Amino acid sequence: MPALPDLSAIEALDAADPLRAFRERFVLPEGVIYLDGNSLGAASHAALAELDTAARQEWSQDLIRSWNTAGWFDMPVKLGDRIGRLVGAAEGQIVVGDTTSVNIYKALHAALALRPGRNVIVAESGSFPTDLYVAEGVVSTRPGTSLKLEGVDAPAIEDLIDETVAVVLVNHVNFKSGTLRDMAVLTKRIHDAGALAIWDLCHSAGALPVELDAAGADFAVGCTYKYLNGGPGAPAFVYAARRHHDNIVQPLSGWWGHARPFAMETGFAAAEGIRRFQCGTQPILSMRALKGALDIWDEVDMQALREKSLALTDLFIALVEARCGQYGVSLETTCARASRGSQVSFAHDHAYEVMQALIERGVIGDFRAPSTLRFGFTPLYTSYRDVWDAVAVLEDILASGVWKEPRFAVRAAVT
Amino acid sequence: MPALPDLSAIEALDAADPLRAFRERFVLPEGVIYLDGNSLGAASHAALAELDTAARQEWSQDLIRSWNTAGWFDMPVKLGDRIGRLVGAAEGQIVVGDTTSVNIYKALHAALALRPGRNVIVAESGSFPTDLYVAEGVVSTRPGTSLKLEGVDAPAIEDLIDETVAVVLVNHVNFKSGTLRDMAVLTKRIHDAGALAIWDLCHSAGALPVELDAAGADFAVGCTYKYLNGGPGAPAFVYAARRHHDNIVQPLSGWWGHARPFAMETGFAAAEGIRRFQCGTQPILSMRALKGALDIWDEVDMQALREKSLALTDLFIALVEARCGQYGVSLETTCARASRGSQVSFAHDHAYEVMQALIERGVIGDFRAPSTLRFGFTPLYTSYRDVWDAVAVLEDILASGVWKEPRFAVRAAVT
Repeated sequence: MPALPDLSAIEALDAADPLRAFRERFVLPEGVIYLDGNSLGAASHAALAELDTAARQEWSQDLIRSWNTAGWFDMPVKLGDRIGRLVGAAEGQIVVGDTTSVNIYKALHAALALRPGRNVIVAESGSFPTDLYVAEGVVSTRPGTSLKLEGVDAPAIEDLIDETVAVVLVNHVNFKSGTLRDMAVLTKRIHDAGALAIWDLCHSAGALPVELDAAGADFAVGCTYKYLNGGPGAPAFVYAARRHHDNIVQPLSGWWGHARPFAMETGFAAAEGIRRFQCGTQPILSMRALKGALDIWDEVDMQALREKSLALTDLFIALVEARCGQYGVSLETTCARASRGSQVSFAHDHAYEVMQALIERGVIGDFRAPSTLRFGFTPLYTSYRDVWDAVAVLEDILASGVWKEPRFAVRAAVT
Repeated sequence: MPALPDLSAIEALDAADPLRAFRERFVLPEGVIYLDGNSLGAASHAALAELDTAARQEWSQDLIRSWNTAGWFDMPVKLGDRIGRLVGAAEGQIVVGDTTSVNIYKALHAALALRPGRNVIVAESGSFPTDLYVAEGVVSTRPGTSLKLEGVDAPAIEDLIDETVAVVLVNHVNFKSGTLRDMAVLTKRIHDAGALAIWDLCHSAGALPVELDAAGADFAVGCTYKYLNGGPGAPAFVYAARRHHDNIVQPLSGWWGHARPFAMETGFAAAEGIRRFQCGTQPILSMRALKGALDIWDEVDMQALREKSLALTDLFIALVEARCGQYGVSLETTCARASRGSQVSFAHDHAYEVMQALIERGVIGDFRAPSTLRFGFTPLYTSYRDVWDAVAVLEDILASGVWKEPRFAVRAAVT
């Protein structure tokens, strides 16, 4: 461990940061250090401007004509291609729409249909839960299919992958610990067993370079409201490798996935390519905010993003361990850079109360039950000084014991 | 047929219209007579204001805290209750979210699960197509289940309802002809055969009083971007009668439908009540525009709405038949008020070209293949004078033959 930097070293890091100009593109509240962009990304001026145009011109003035003139109908595939650059997918393999949960449902059905005779879905007990809930839903409609979980049925996911397995649904970065899986290695292991891989990119898309095509991934899903900054509940996306397109069937076969949606035919005929993952009419206003957010992403060098992300998390880990280690915080995220996403989690016996005290002081991270303090680092708008200042507040809260005040223990219905 | 009104009679109708003040609540483009609110409803000042607050304050400034402080998480059920008043559903039976197509999928699965041993879904060949496409998708995941269509397997839907039928999926108002079904009568016929009824309200919610509870409907779905004016692609809704709630299972079992979504449990446990129809995180910006639209609906007397709707469509039919009948237009919508929604369709051999000529002149209706001119009448912002003026333009286009000019035959990719 090198010597801890001092404030002048921190300021030098910010001055030399090649991404620092991006911060001005975002609308950040005064007096807040926002370390929760891994849950809801910040608003950008571009997203707000697109939303205004969509609402005040296209909807209000142009009305129904905007489906053509403003390109509303093609937005899901056009935005999908732009996300593709960030996650290593060549054109025509990603479509934006619906929710991550709904897209997992489609991808699981599609994968099972591609592996007839195999009837096991493998997932992780430490997965973001909706992945498991949706897998249960898929199992409920396919008699004979079952779900096996890493951490329940076997200690490691590799131990579950055999000739009965049709598909492995795996999180690229764990939502709680921030641990990053090696996509290429695990995908190869899955393929060697004859199964297919679905990667959940919710905590890696926009957080680090993802290489879906290069890793040979079969399917992927992800959300756009975390690191991609698309806005609260912005539409999700789904990726399918081109080699599968002609054989994809999925049961959410709504009219937007039809080959000729406006011919109003009685029978379903799947669209060519990734469009067959579409189902119904998408929320255009939310999608237009996402378009604005992606305008910024078009300019981002993903390697520079990753370097800053690792530098920010290195710094945060080092500062917290040095200054706060004596107060009962312990690192949950791996120290190894190759296995780290863009978030850092520390355990504390009173994590809920400590996080509430941090939020009161303007340092916004989040709490994950039972004992995790989770902090997300978004290189486009987080500075090294933010990290420095956040740790100073955390140290003060822990040293003073202010978190023990009763008001910090009052839990809201939703956290 | 009474004598046709003259312009002074039209002006008197507008002056006496109890709903006329609502028009000022909407943002309508200059020089346009908008008769396509049955496809995309107009923007309101309230919807735009809610959208601004959601984007510029809640997202931009309050960020992740808005899930609690701005009530984002509960919006789907709160907005559902407000739609409930418009469609005759007591509280706790409607939730807003996802798309109509996705909600049909959930409702069909739920209905089939409630009728074990029955394996036929009945629908209409003249249905809005996505209903049929989704029913095909459901059938594809449930071996032994089949789909039978009115207009293909039998001339009338009643002839298909027997003891093999689990569920009948039926459009309340036909998207093309505007024909309104008698919900109470058909639901009773369905129940007498031991089956369940799913009503698609896309073209009746906000167009006329709907009485889901009184009719004994089992499930219903609908969209919010047509008569409800929620914005392009605004989230859809799904209704389930309370008597079914405890026994509802549907396979899109994402985390928003979990009894304890933030406990992050590994196994799925369905939420109580209508929340179990939820799946994933919803598009908050789009949902907030809908909230603004519903603020207006809270003030609307649905009987007054229906009376004006029928008066507008009566007037339009009478004027078009009197002035344009000689030019090859023929009414497709029924004349009987009891069977009429809030739209009127006329057939014309060159409907596409005529509609393009109308749009060029600022009268916006829409075309439905192969030969339908479709006009929607939205009592909150359509005046009697609009009807008068629209017919004058139609008459002029038909009498002059201007629609024969080649430019009107050029078809856009999406209409």
